Amino acid sequence: MHDQTRTAESDQDLWPAGRLHNAREAAARAGLDALLISPGADLRYLTGYDAKPLERLTCLVVPVDGPPFLVVPALEESAAQASPAGGLGLEITGWSETDDPYAIIAARLPSRTARVGVDNHMWAEKTTAFRTALPGTRQELAGSVLNELRMRKTPPEVTALRRAGTAIDRVHARMGEWLRAGRTEREVGRDIAEAILAEGHVRVDFVIVGSGPHSASPHHELSDRVIRPGDPVVVDIGGTTRDGYCSDSTRVYAIGEPPEEFRRLHDVLLRAQTAQTKAVRPGLTAGQLDAIGRDIITDAGYGAFFIHRTGHGIGLESHEEPYIVSGSALPLEPGMAFSVEPGIYLPDRYGARIEDIVICTEDGAERLNLTGRDLVVIP
Amino acid sequence: MHDQTRTAESDQDLWPAGRLHNAREAAARAGLDALLISPGADLRYLTGYDAKPLERLTCLVVPVDGPPFLVVPALEESAAQASPAGGLGLEITGWSETDDPYAIIAARLPSRTARVGVDNHMWAEKTTAFRTALPGTRQELAGSVLNELRMRKTPPEVTALRRAGTAIDRVHARMGEWLRAGRTEREVGRDIAEAILAEGHVRVDFVIVGSGPHSASPHHELSDRVIRPGDPVVVDIGGTTRDGYCSDSTRVYAIGEPPEEFRRLHDVLLRAQTAQTKAVRPGLTAGQLDAIGRDIITDAGYGAFFIHRTGHGIGLESHEEPYIVSGSALPLEPGMAFSVEPGIYLPDRYGARIEDIVICTEDGAERLNLTGRDLVVIP
Repeated sequence: MHDQTRTAESDQDLWPAGRLHNAREAAARAGLDALLISPGADLRYLTGYDAKPLERLTCLVVPVDGPPFLVVPALEESAAQASPAGGLGLEITGWSETDDPYAIIAARLPSRTARVGVDNHMWAEKTTAFRTALPGTRQELAGSVLNELRMRKTPPEVTALRRAGTAIDRVHARMGEWLRAGRTEREVGRDIAEAILAEGHVRVDFVIVGSGPHSASPHHELSDRVIRPGDPVVVDIGGTTRDGYCSDSTRVYAIGEPPEEFRRLHDVLLRAQTAQTKAVRPGLTAGQLDAIGRDIITDAGYGAFFIHRTGHGIGLESHEEPYIVSGSALPLEPGMAFSVEPGIYLPDRYGARIEDIVICTEDGAERLNLTGRDLVVIP
Repeated sequence: MHDQTRTAESDQDLWPAGRLHNAREAAARAGLDALLISPGADLRYLTGYDAKPLERLTCLVVPVDGPPFLVVPALEESAAQASPAGGLGLEITGWSETDDPYAIIAARLPSRTARVGVDNHMWAEKTTAFRTALPGTRQELAGSVLNELRMRKTPPEVTALRRAGTAIDRVHARMGEWLRAGRTEREVGRDIAEAILAEGHVRVDFVIVGSGPHSASPHHELSDRVIRPGDPVVVDIGGTTRDGYCSDSTRVYAIGEPPEEFRRLHDVLLRAQTAQTKAVRPGLTAGQLDAIGRDIITDAGYGAFFIHRTGHGIGLESHEEPYIVSGSALPLEPGMAFSVEPGIYLPDRYGARIEDIVICTEDGAERLNLTGRDLVVIP
């Protein structure tokens, strides 16, 4: 479900009109003539309009010369007006069922439109239709301009992410209500999903309950496996709050006492995750941050079993820039929000991952997830 | 939440291996050298794999010469294997965090690959990366091949849609539990969303509760408006069942006796919707079916207020081909599944829409939604 009601707070703080101006300036610097933005995080970032991606075209057009405008199916016009986009002084134009919205947009762009930046998530059927409507125009990715802006969060965005972090922390804090031997992962997952909604999210983005050997599969979600005494259980959960910002946190549980080696593995992981969290500071590169945890895990003999990157950015999407990945030369900057989530996975046996969302500040990391990171043994 | 567990029933009936063969044959007839299919309904249709669209590339490659293969992030490899795709004898290859999956795919395609069909919903950032990896290759839309296949449902698919229809009917049948004066649309919507899950869906796709003047906005969703005595309320709801098929049904309610003119409007609408449902037969075009309802509504003086098409196809997506839209020359065929949902909207006053999903059969329409279509007055 999407929420189309404007609230005074979110309008003014979370979707300031200046973003459209900044996007236009950045597009001009990149030599683009216009940005074409379809429903999704970019549209919400620029206008606050939480539109669904549909077969009918909704498109924000940001020409570098001239005012931006929003083209929506006539059916969606009142919803667009009722969204924060309606408060930006933006022209909102509806198109009817037998109109060609691509031609409408093409006709409004200057004839010398040589290069446009299309939304990174625009569907191929829509970029293809724009190719037909704008045959001489080269399509590049709007992300080359917008990701730079979205990557650095403003204080109101940090507040929104903090609220999301607290919401998912409340769900982890209640895990003992649901997680126990004899229940299936799916049953536990259903309870968690309900709690994600009850504890301050409007959407469940993912629920991973990896028990026993399933904990060794990083992106396992839910199954009918019955949880058993001695099982390690990785619980990785996240949702989206009403203002569109996402949560994401992973904790490791055990049903009664887990195998001794699992405790050792978890200790190594906790040392790596703690060291990485403490190391966050402006100027450190994403690749260096990845290496700090990878070295600790490798020194303990588990290097081959840390099979993914350390983390991903988070904001209006669960996964966005910056990616904390080996080799990345991107320097961390104040306002960047990302996960720190090393993992160790012993195939067919068990695995673990510990994940916090952090904000890079001048003084290091602010952790947005504050439940204990120790292994939680559920009696 | 996605469900990665294979069930014997769905494997054999809903995702027969023959679909990959049919897709390859159709691609060859269209002169394409390969199809590149990203997560979404096409991938699920072809393989049963319900993958999430992520920043990391997951791509089914269907070359016309040679066996199809699935390229997934290493993290997702076990989930892909555990999905019905694992039972198709398909090669599944994982790529690691620092690999370039686009280059991996390009290297496996024949060097003379001139034309590929990309998934209609593939993100621009992915088509752009494929353009770099396959610089001499022309990208067209895979939908030109796959929509033809997906549009005609097999008997197991019709069974799945029938199950979805019955599930959403159960939610409409319970509407009296939640819908009453003094509650907000959002409160009612929250209860409906819970019931959609409780009554046989794994995902809530949309919940529209348009009360009073909001009923005049076809795609209004939910707001904090308090429902009042005399309000007409349009409730349009749908979800996705465990096997991936969607439901969608709209009914019109009134809180106590509605305005007299609203009753007249609803009577006209019901006549139009009933006439359209009865008219469905193979050979009638989608445009003719649209006209049958539009003429009735126009004759009654409401033509200017029926501002959308009559319907949309439904299957693994809520909205897919065929679209029942003015001017469409597409002839209906047995196995096509679509909504019949005319509407009349008097701006700022009230509106109504009645919607059933139907299957076109040799003998006319099979309605999948069977709750009464009369105006339901809630005392």
